[in-house]
Amino acid sequence: MEAEGRFRGDLAHRLAVARGDEPADLVIAGGRVLSVFTGELLDADVAVAGEHVAGVGPGYEGLERVDASGLILLPGFIDGHMHIESTKLMVDEFARAVLPHGTTTVVLDPHEIANVFGLDGVRAILAAAQWIPLDFYVMVSSCVPASPFESSGATVDADDIARFLAEEPRALGLAEMMDFPGVVGGSDEALAKIEAAWLARDGHIDGHAPGLSGRALAAYLAAGVRSDHECTTYEEALEKRRLGMWIMIREGSAARNLEALLPLVLEHGPGNCLVCTDDREPDQLLAEGHIDDVMRKAVALGCPPYHAVVMGTLNAARYHRLHRHGAVAPGYVADVVAVEDLSRFRPVSVWKRGRLAAQHGAPLTVPRAEAPEWMRGSVRVPSLGADAFAVGATGPVRVIGVTSGQLVTRALVAEPGRRNGQAVADPDRDLAKIAVVERHRGTGRIGVGFVSGFGLARGAMA
Amino acid sequence: MEAEGRFRGDLAHRLAVARGDEPADLVIAGGRVLSVFTGELLDADVAVAGEHVAGVGPGYEGLERVDASGLILLPGFIDGHMHIESTKLMVDEFARAVLPHGTTTVVLDPHEIANVFGLDGVRAILAAAQWIPLDFYVMVSSCVPASPFESSGATVDADDIARFLAEEPRALGLAEMMDFPGVVGGSDEALAKIEAAWLARDGHIDGHAPGLSGRALAAYLAAGVRSDHECTTYEEALEKRRLGMWIMIREGSAARNLEALLPLVLEHGPGNCLVCTDDREPDQLLAEGHIDDVMRKAVALGCPPYHAVVMGTLNAARYHRLHRHGAVAPGYVADVVAVEDLSRFRPVSVWKRGRLAAQHGAPLTVPRAEAPEWMRGSVRVPSLGADAFAVGATGPVRVIGVTSGQLVTRALVAEPGRRNGQAVADPDRDLAKIAVVERHRGTGRIGVGFVSGFGLARGAMA
Repeated sequence: MEAEGRFRGDLAHRLAVARGDEPADLVIAGGRVLSVFTGELLDADVAVAGEHVAGVGPGYEGLERVDASGLILLPGFIDGHMHIESTKLMVDEFARAVLPHGTTTVVLDPHEIANVFGLDGVRAILAAAQWIPLDFYVMVSSCVPASPFESSGATVDADDIARFLAEEPRALGLAEMMDFPGVVGGSDEALAKIEAAWLARDGHIDGHAPGLSGRALAAYLAAGVRSDHECTTYEEALEKRRLGMWIMIREGSAARNLEALLPLVLEHGPGNCLVCTDDREPDQLLAEGHIDDVMRKAVALGCPPYHAVVMGTLNAARYHRLHRHGAVAPGYVADVVAVEDLSRFRPVSVWKRGRLAAQHGAPLTVPRAEAPEWMRGSVRVPSLGADAFAVGATGPVRVIGVTSGQLVTRALVAEPGRRNGQAVADPDRDLAKIAVVERHRGTGRIGVGFVSGFGLARGAMA
Repeated sequence: MEAEGRFRGDLAHRLAVARGDEPADLVIAGGRVLSVFTGELLDADVAVAGEHVAGVGPGYEGLERVDASGLILLPGFIDGHMHIESTKLMVDEFARAVLPHGTTTVVLDPHEIANVFGLDGVRAILAAAQWIPLDFYVMVSSCVPASPFESSGATVDADDIARFLAEEPRALGLAEMMDFPGVVGGSDEALAKIEAAWLARDGHIDGHAPGLSGRALAAYLAAGVRSDHECTTYEEALEKRRLGMWIMIREGSAARNLEALLPLVLEHGPGNCLVCTDDREPDQLLAEGHIDDVMRKAVALGCPPYHAVVMGTLNAARYHRLHRHGAVAPGYVADVVAVEDLSRFRPVSVWKRGRLAAQHGAPLTVPRAEAPEWMRGSVRVPSLGADAFAVGATGPVRVIGVTSGQLVTRALVAEPGRRNGQAVADPDRDLAKIAVVERHRGTGRIGVGFVSGFGLARGAMA
C-alpha cells in the first residue's frame, strides 16, 4: 500500500509539474535537447519531478534551476552488455568511474561472480548496488561454469535461473548464451534455460556466437536468442542483423570491433544496433571513458552523431525493454547528460534520476558499497613453487596465438625455448608461458601452456 | 506440465528443422524475403516448424513445399489499433475479410462491446476468437463509458482493468486513454487506471489526444501514455513524436490521416511510426482492403516501400511488445504474406502461424465463431413514433458540421426547414436530422439534433 500511495503521489506531482501548476524539483534550462526520436535539437527546458522528466518545453519554473545555455542535453548513456568483473571495481567505485563519463545505466552479466558464488553472489552485488546512483540491471548468467572444461566454484542450472527471474525485478532476462553449440544442438540443459527465460521474461535472451552463420545461426535464433556482441566483421554482423539479431557493437579493452562494424550503421542505419563494452579495464575507463568513448570514436569514424547517440541510449533501452530509459522526454527516468558538442561528448554535468551525479569529470558523493564478508577470501590457492609451472615437453609445443584487439585466438605450433631440459618462454620471439590455476578449492590443479603475441618481454603477471 | 513438454518439444523440433536435421513442416521456396531489419530482399527459402519460422536460407527441405518464385515474402500485416465493432463483423467474419489482405494480427480496443457488456463482453470475444487463424490481442478499454455524458450498459473501473490484465495474457495494456483531460488533470479515476497498467504491463498505454500540445501533452506523456492515433497534421504528429510518442498513422473510413502525416515519415524516417485503421467499415475492407491498403496508399504517396512495410509489421509489433511478431526470421511466428510487388501489395498467399490461411484473395476455411446467447438481443429500444424525433425549435438551431475524412466536427448554427410548426431537415441544404437513442435499458431517452455535410438526400438510416 505504501508503494501504491507513493506511485500515485509521484505521478500526481509529475503531472502538476508538467502542467506548470507546481514548480519542478529541478529545471535544466536554456539548453538544447536531442530528440532521440527524430534527431532534432529542441530549444527546451527540462522539468524534472522526482526521478522522472515531467516536461520538455519552454518556460518551466523550478525549485532548483541550472543554466544549460550552450549545452546539448542527451539521455544518460547505457552499456547494453558488460561484465563489471573486468573493471576490477566494486559497484560504488565503478559508478564513480563512469558517471563522469555520462553512463547512468548498465546491464551486467555478472558471470565471473556467479562462477565463484553462484547467483547468491549476484544477489549480493545487486544488494550492494541498491543505493548507488546508477541503474544496475542484470541478465542472469546462463553458462556457469562457462564450459564443461572449466572448474568453477558454483553451477547455475535452469531452476536457479527461473527462481532468480521470479524474485528479482532488476533481472531482465538470460545472459549471453555462450554455450551456442548446446543451443544449436538442442541440449536438454540449454533448452531448459531458454525455456525459463521464455516463461519468465518473454524470451529476452542475449547471445554470444562468434562466427556463427548459416543454419547453425538460424537454429540459435530459432531458440529465441536476440542479440550478439561477438561480431568481428561487417559480413558477419550483416547476416545476423538481417535475421533480426540486435548487433551489440563492442568496443572493449581487448576486443575492439567498432571500426569493423560501423559500416553496418553507415549503410543500413542504426536500427537493431547498440554499443557495449563487454570487458573494459579500469585504466581504460579512466583514461578513455566508457560509452561516451565508443560514441566519440564512432563519430570520428564517420557515424552521424544522432546515430551514435541512439546506439548508446534509446536502442540499448529498447533492446532490453527498459521502457522508461533512453530518452529525455516526459515520463522517462531523468537521466540527463549535458555535453558541449556531439563530437567529443564530454559531459559537463550528469543527472541520475533527477539528481546531479557528476560534474566536469568528477563524481558527486557516491555512497560506499561493501561486499559482504562471506565474499572475501574466495581465492584459495596452495603455495606454488617454480616447479609447478615447469613444462617437460621435448618437441614442438602448441601455442595460443593472440591478436591485439580481438578475442579469437589462433592455434599455433612452435619450438619453445629450452633450459635444463625444460620447455621455457622465449621473449625474443614473443613466446610466453601462461598458466591457469584452480582457485576455488585450493586443489593445486594447474594448466600450463604457451602464448604468442602477448608482448610480455620480462617478468610475470597474475 | 503438458504445456512445458509441448514447449520443449516444439523448440527441439524447430531447432532440428533450422539445422536441416529434420524436414520442415513447410518450406516456402524460391522467393525473396524482405528483411525488415535492413530493407534488403534476400534470396532465401523460409523453413517453418510448427507455428514458427525455423530457418531463412537456401536449400531447406520440407514435408510440404510451396513455390514462391517471383514473389516477395513479407511478415503478416498488423493493425496496431482498431475497433472490430466498426467492421460490424464477428471475429470469424472479420478474419475471412482481412486474411486475404494479409492481416494476421490485430490489436483491438473492444470498447463498444465493453460499453454494452463490460469486460465480460471482451472475454467472450476473446473466447470466440480462440480457434480463428488470426491473432487477436486486446488493449483493455480504459474509458467505459466513453464520457460521463454517455449512457452505457456497463462501466469499467481500475479494479476491473487490473483483474483483466492479471487474468488475460492476450491483453497487452491499457487502451486509448480518451479521457485525456482526466489524465492531464490527474483525476483519481484516470490515475488509478494508469497505475493498473504500470503495475501489470510496465506502462503499456495507448493514447487518444486530438490536438493535445505543449504542457498538456507533456502531462499526458508524463503519465506514461505512449502512442496517439488522432494526429491530423504534420506539425501535431512531429511535436508528439519528438517527445517519444508512437504515431499511429490512421487511415480509417471516416478519419483518413495518411496523406497529412506521411511527410513525417518522409522527413524523419519510419521510427516511432506505425499504421492502423481505428474504424473501418466492412464495405471498405472488402473493396479497398485493410493494412495492405494503407501501405499501398503510402507507397503511392511517395513512401519508400520498405518503410511502408515496417510501419505495417515490425513497428506495430515493437510498439506493442509483441516480440515474436513482425518479421520473417527464425524464432518469429510464421505469419508470411507472399506478394508480387512492393507497390500493390496484393497477397498471393497468406500463411498464419505456419498454415495457409488465404490464397488469391480468398480465405481458407475459418471455423465459425458464435457470440454466446447472452450477448444477443442487447439492443433494447421501445417503439418510437415520428413524434419522438420532433424538434419544436422556432429559431435557428445548432448544427453538427461534418467534414469528410475527418473526425473533428464544427459547431454551426443554421435555420432549419419548417413544417407544421416543427424544425425539420432540409436535404437541399444538406441539413439532416440526427438522433441518439438510449439502447441499453429501453428508457426511451432520445437526443435529436441536426447535422450538415453528411450528404443524406432522402430516407433515413439507423
